[in-house]
Amino acid sequence: MRAVLLNTGTELLAGDVHDTHLAFIAREIFPLGLRIEERRTVGDGAVIGETLKELFARAEIVFVTGGLGPTSDDITRDLAAELLGLRLDENAELLASLRERLKIRGIKWFPSIARQAQVPAGAQILPNENGSAPGLYLKANINPTIGSPHIFLLPGPPRELQPMFRKSAMPILRSVVKAPQIERRFYKIAVMGESVIEEKIGKQVLAIPGVELGYCARPGEVDVRMIGPRSALEQADAIVRAELGELIFTNDDKTLEDVLVRLLTEKKQTLATAESCTGGLLANRITNVPGASSVLLAGYVCYANEAKIDILGVDPKLIEQHGAVSEEVGRVMAEGARKRAKSTYALATTGIAGPDGGSKEKPVGTAYVALAHDAETKVRKLFFPSDRETFKQLVAQFAFEMLRRRVMGVP
Amino acid sequence: MRAVLLNTGTELLAGDVHDTHLAFIAREIFPLGLRIEERRTVGDGAVIGETLKELFARAEIVFVTGGLGPTSDDITRDLAAELLGLRLDENAELLASLRERLKIRGIKWFPSIARQAQVPAGAQILPNENGSAPGLYLKANINPTIGSPHIFLLPGPPRELQPMFRKSAMPILRSVVKAPQIERRFYKIAVMGESVIEEKIGKQVLAIPGVELGYCARPGEVDVRMIGPRSALEQADAIVRAELGELIFTNDDKTLEDVLVRLLTEKKQTLATAESCTGGLLANRITNVPGASSVLLAGYVCYANEAKIDILGVDPKLIEQHGAVSEEVGRVMAEGARKRAKSTYALATTGIAGPDGGSKEKPVGTAYVALAHDAETKVRKLFFPSDRETFKQLVAQFAFEMLRRRVMGVP
Repeated sequence: MRAVLLNTGTELLAGDVHDTHLAFIAREIFPLGLRIEERRTVGDGAVIGETLKELFARAEIVFVTGGLGPTSDDITRDLAAELLGLRLDENAELLASLRERLKIRGIKWFPSIARQAQVPAGAQILPNENGSAPGLYLKANINPTIGSPHIFLLPGPPRELQPMFRKSAMPILRSVVKAPQIERRFYKIAVMGESVIEEKIGKQVLAIPGVELGYCARPGEVDVRMIGPRSALEQADAIVRAELGELIFTNDDKTLEDVLVRLLTEKKQTLATAESCTGGLLANRITNVPGASSVLLAGYVCYANEAKIDILGVDPKLIEQHGAVSEEVGRVMAEGARKRAKSTYALATTGIAGPDGGSKEKPVGTAYVALAHDAETKVRKLFFPSDRETFKQLVAQFAFEMLRRRVMGVP
Repeated sequence: MRAVLLNTGTELLAGDVHDTHLAFIAREIFPLGLRIEERRTVGDGAVIGETLKELFARAEIVFVTGGLGPTSDDITRDLAAELLGLRLDENAELLASLRERLKIRGIKWFPSIARQAQVPAGAQILPNENGSAPGLYLKANINPTIGSPHIFLLPGPPRELQPMFRKSAMPILRSVVKAPQIERRFYKIAVMGESVIEEKIGKQVLAIPGVELGYCARPGEVDVRMIGPRSALEQADAIVRAELGELIFTNDDKTLEDVLVRLLTEKKQTLATAESCTGGLLANRITNVPGASSVLLAGYVCYANEAKIDILGVDPKLIEQHGAVSEEVGRVMAEGARKRAKSTYALATTGIAGPDGGSKEKPVGTAYVALAHDAETKVRKLFFPSDRETFKQLVAQFAFEMLRRRVMGVP
């Protein structure tokens, strides 16, 4: 069934409020085999009616958010009723509960509040636990002379919409929608370009009928998403696993640092970080994960050479000879941090984030990442010419993935 | 002029990625007197072409995001060219720069990458500083037999779209759009609730005819936004400055760390950080700012007590007596970091980020922030019960604002 979403609200178009309804509803309805095929956002005005008319003609399920409240710009209910030729009646029970709600809260009654008790003829009320405006469900073909999809009018505030959607809209949807036919698989891979991933899996996966394949690239990370019937997805999944295997760091929306903290906790291993060019990003990301305190023993942000010498025991002559951004200094930074913190592993970064500080031999974007553990220290040279924050993010992804592969024994 | 936005990407409809383009573009084009009147989101497929056809017919400016990359689901460019009847030509210069880009990064070339060098006849290339796919601008009526609005095809990743929009799309828009009638003022205030701010300025500002006043609250920070004709804004601005004065840390979209790095650089002063509960966030935020290397001498992320003792010289007895989360330990962490790094200032944080580790006397959300300089060390107790990342953010904001006021001599 074709489902669409209309978000109403001038504040959304002005950029003052970020919409969260699309992501919420999409994830809720996915297990029913339903997908939002189109989303529109319009302001509070006659355009809502025009858009509803277009959407009623082309969808079987229409979700509408916003415009159910008491103020003059709340016109969704009226416009939907008008379009479907349905009379609006004041619902006595709703009116009484609105009055009660305000009384409890000591809020003054205004005549405009009563608008929220108006219900289109034949509509089902969706109770609102966290606010005053109820939602409304208009069943398909509620007006036989017009014909119409299943329509859900939902309140704008997420904390009102979300419980209402789960408690009242989902049971209706379950009765309306056939059993799910479609599933979804998700893979995240670090430190590998989307072109390389597509080269490995694209043709093979797309050769399976019914599988939809998508990529989403972020700095140092690619999400691979496949949608289709279960049997086809199982074939596709086998291909992805054969080609990418342990390069996949998660199958849900975990971050690389979530995975690392879990892995290290399981193995009772610990980490120290010695950061020059990432400037605390490694430690910050690790400590965003609950339970990080049992994994991260210490983090040293050694921006100045003096700090590298003082804290990590880097020999000043080494810096003089090779420069602070060098394989040699990266190596001793990692080893010094590991020794100092008495940790299982230490990660070190040194590089040129820019925009200044580059040279011909070591241009902006040059970096070294070192990983020290008991058996050896590995150093890798990187080159990520980009803006400062992206550079830090890319180096951090590389460092974390280097550690993840080491902990898991992936070559 | 009627401007609309089309976001393409199945990942948006699936709820995997939150769209940020609407808010970004809406704010950028506002000073031109332009508003997004409708936004649509569709998946990667033929629906992009159908939607473009509808939007071309009803708008004078069309922004399209996503679908310009190298993979098989990137079809925006092709569909737009087809709809406008424009031939796609391979642009030799673009192709060369793509090859160069990959070569520099040591990435293998795939034939599919060349698709990004395809340019519709007559289109203007919008260079991409942070990625491979360029944006494209198709001027109004580029195909006189069809007629069409001004069309901007923009890349999906925000870090590619945003600088491109500012550097290449805005100058074109300025030449296309008439002079703005309406202006906008912007103020950012840290560590003060929006209700307190509204209490200070709300009534007075709204008494000025024609001024629209808005607030946007983020963890530890409130944006105040005023929109209106210049003369009214000048009156309003005088009120805001009289009431908030030096509590305003910026009038543009600078961050608190941007302001701090600039201030410290000007005064030739330096900083060290000793972080327990913020786990590297202070150092990470400071080092996101270009030029941070002349300000931040060292950052110590001392999660484990051993690290506090080893690096910062905290007396183990002090931890035993008062606990690691205490005014006393916060104070010596700051003093120890300042001494070790030989910096003008040191900021220290210690607290309980949760979800575990709280007690009746020191519940999750308790934190101490200490600021040490040559004359004295100030410690402040905070209580921010919230999720882990928000807690870290709130403590960091408090610490930075404490330092900003000290450096500026604000009481």
